[in-house]
Amino acid sequence: MKILITGGGGFLGDRLARALLARPTLAGREVTKVVLTDIAPPRADLLADPRVEGRTGALLTQTDALRDEAFDGVFHLASAVSGECEADFDLGLRSNLDSTRALLDAIRANVNAGGQAPRLVFSSSVAVFGPDPAVPLPKVVADDTLPAPQTSYGMHKLVCEHLVADYTRKGYLDGRAARLMTVCVRPGKPNGAASSFFSGIIREPLAGVESICPVDENVSHPISSPTRTVEGLIRVYEASREEFNGRTALNLPALNVRVADMLAALEQVAGKAVRQLVRFERDERIAGIVANWPSGASAARAAKLGLLPHENFAEIIRQYIDDCSKAPNADQTLKGLAR
Amino acid sequence: MKILITGGGGFLGDRLARALLARPTLAGREVTKVVLTDIAPPRADLLADPRVEGRTGALLTQTDALRDEAFDGVFHLASAVSGECEADFDLGLRSNLDSTRALLDAIRANVNAGGQAPRLVFSSSVAVFGPDPAVPLPKVVADDTLPAPQTSYGMHKLVCEHLVADYTRKGYLDGRAARLMTVCVRPGKPNGAASSFFSGIIREPLAGVESICPVDENVSHPISSPTRTVEGLIRVYEASREEFNGRTALNLPALNVRVADMLAALEQVAGKAVRQLVRFERDERIAGIVANWPSGASAARAAKLGLLPHENFAEIIRQYIDDCSKAPNADQTLKGLAR
Repeated sequence: MKILITGGGGFLGDRLARALLARPTLAGREVTKVVLTDIAPPRADLLADPRVEGRTGALLTQTDALRDEAFDGVFHLASAVSGECEADFDLGLRSNLDSTRALLDAIRANVNAGGQAPRLVFSSSVAVFGPDPAVPLPKVVADDTLPAPQTSYGMHKLVCEHLVADYTRKGYLDGRAARLMTVCVRPGKPNGAASSFFSGIIREPLAGVESICPVDENVSHPISSPTRTVEGLIRVYEASREEFNGRTALNLPALNVRVADMLAALEQVAGKAVRQLVRFERDERIAGIVANWPSGASAARAAKLGLLPHENFAEIIRQYIDDCSKAPNADQTLKGLAR
Repeated sequence: MKILITGGGGFLGDRLARALLARPTLAGREVTKVVLTDIAPPRADLLADPRVEGRTGALLTQTDALRDEAFDGVFHLASAVSGECEADFDLGLRSNLDSTRALLDAIRANVNAGGQAPRLVFSSSVAVFGPDPAVPLPKVVADDTLPAPQTSYGMHKLVCEHLVADYTRKGYLDGRAARLMTVCVRPGKPNGAASSFFSGIIREPLAGVESICPVDENVSHPISSPTRTVEGLIRVYEASREEFNGRTALNLPALNVRVADMLAALEQVAGKAVRQLVRFERDERIAGIVANWPSGASAARAAKLGLLPHENFAEIIRQYIDDCSKAPNADQTLKGLAR
């Protein structure tokens, strides 16, 4: 069967594509083709797989053509990140709202022309939650906590959750929205996400590079490893509608952890010298955004699907080190460890 | 000051415009101009007021010009109704999502060009609420009940609540979303709203005409009179940001009433013969939509603004009769009463 991954050139899209291609089946069927759309091309070794096709360009420039192309499944990951959306309101609306709407309408056009409604997993975000004077934010947000986004990115994700739910209700697709926790440790360079430092304060020291933490060490946050996140997306795809239970979004599992605990785990796994490469220097812009995020999340519906968070943060660091060792590249060094 | 009312040719827009023009001030300032946009023109007697300007045409065809025009205040009421949106998915998206987005972006363009951010009241709806397997619907929905729309109309309203909140957060407008309850008794003809019968079963018998109730008499629903609804919109406009309290939407006050109680009140006010003009004939399409609506609503935030529901349904019927007597027209007869 044929799968589309939007944002397929990104870190998670890449990991997801490799995971799908490595499986004998997805929801009982063999994956024979994976189309990756993104502004960045997929990695060369992924493209070398004859089942993989990369299409480079903004999603919004590709959706017209998608009206004539049927997919069995779609993972819609493409998104401008929170920092970008705060800096450029139009970019956020275009990349996150207009692109999703155009994608859903392309699918709808295909279905209206006689095609089968595809299964679709939408990657929403814990960023849908936030405090509002009329809606105090619980310390731990649950699947059914009332979202009150405090960033444009969070608003976009919430709006798309509801678009996916309504297109699903109407039978244009079989959609499931899963809220991703902050993915950590991300390899590569810092990105425009306000949450980027959660990976930076682990990844950079492990590479032997100094890293700045822009928030204080008592900040707590719901985190998930790349592996668990990809497992979550696949499990949500494979769930029956009854298992998914309704059309509202669910939270993927999170390890709720303080910055101080992350750094203690870093010291435990990699030693004191590595830990000391993290310096605290408050960034009011980042700290202000993060202050409006929940300090933890629960995931009761995901747990019913068998999805669980890591037990501790040291496990997440060890997995990152293991990933780097298996697939070494210039962006993912462990030079800090070697010192 | 200059006010824009979208949907200004409709029933509520008309009532709102008259109410604004009759007041000495709105939020402390004199209303010198009211622009009414709608696909239908405003009534002639309203247009005769030199302060009133009507602009006929779909909102989406008018938003480009609005980029160059500053308003002090906006009441955004224009909307395709629930039945229409279920019947024509594209119409709903265009009329409710695209039009709102274009309106907000026109305002943003004006503000970006140096204009002042206007105050804006968005008329959302109790239709944002609904049951989902993962989110049981409480009998009485509160301001902070988790919305899970079960119609496209409800989804559109919820999405627009969040657009208004985010444009407000960014300073492009001073927006407040107020969820309207089912307005009853509406004068005029039945419209495409699935809730149309709530007015029909009172209005038609009072006019001496038979009316069909498509749901059973135990169906309960949150209702508000036109007068209280318009008062609510104005009070929400006049609230300070602190009084409005946050950026999430609030419920306007509702009288939670069963169909059986509505008909008992009709008999009490207008007599048995009028009551007997209502015939029960189940319509599965309507009953199915209504079954997913809440049976009642609470409005704690509105109460803090001094907004309260009517005490009983007979009061609402008497107000309708009074309105008809004051402004008689062909659509609003009370021939049933006269028999």
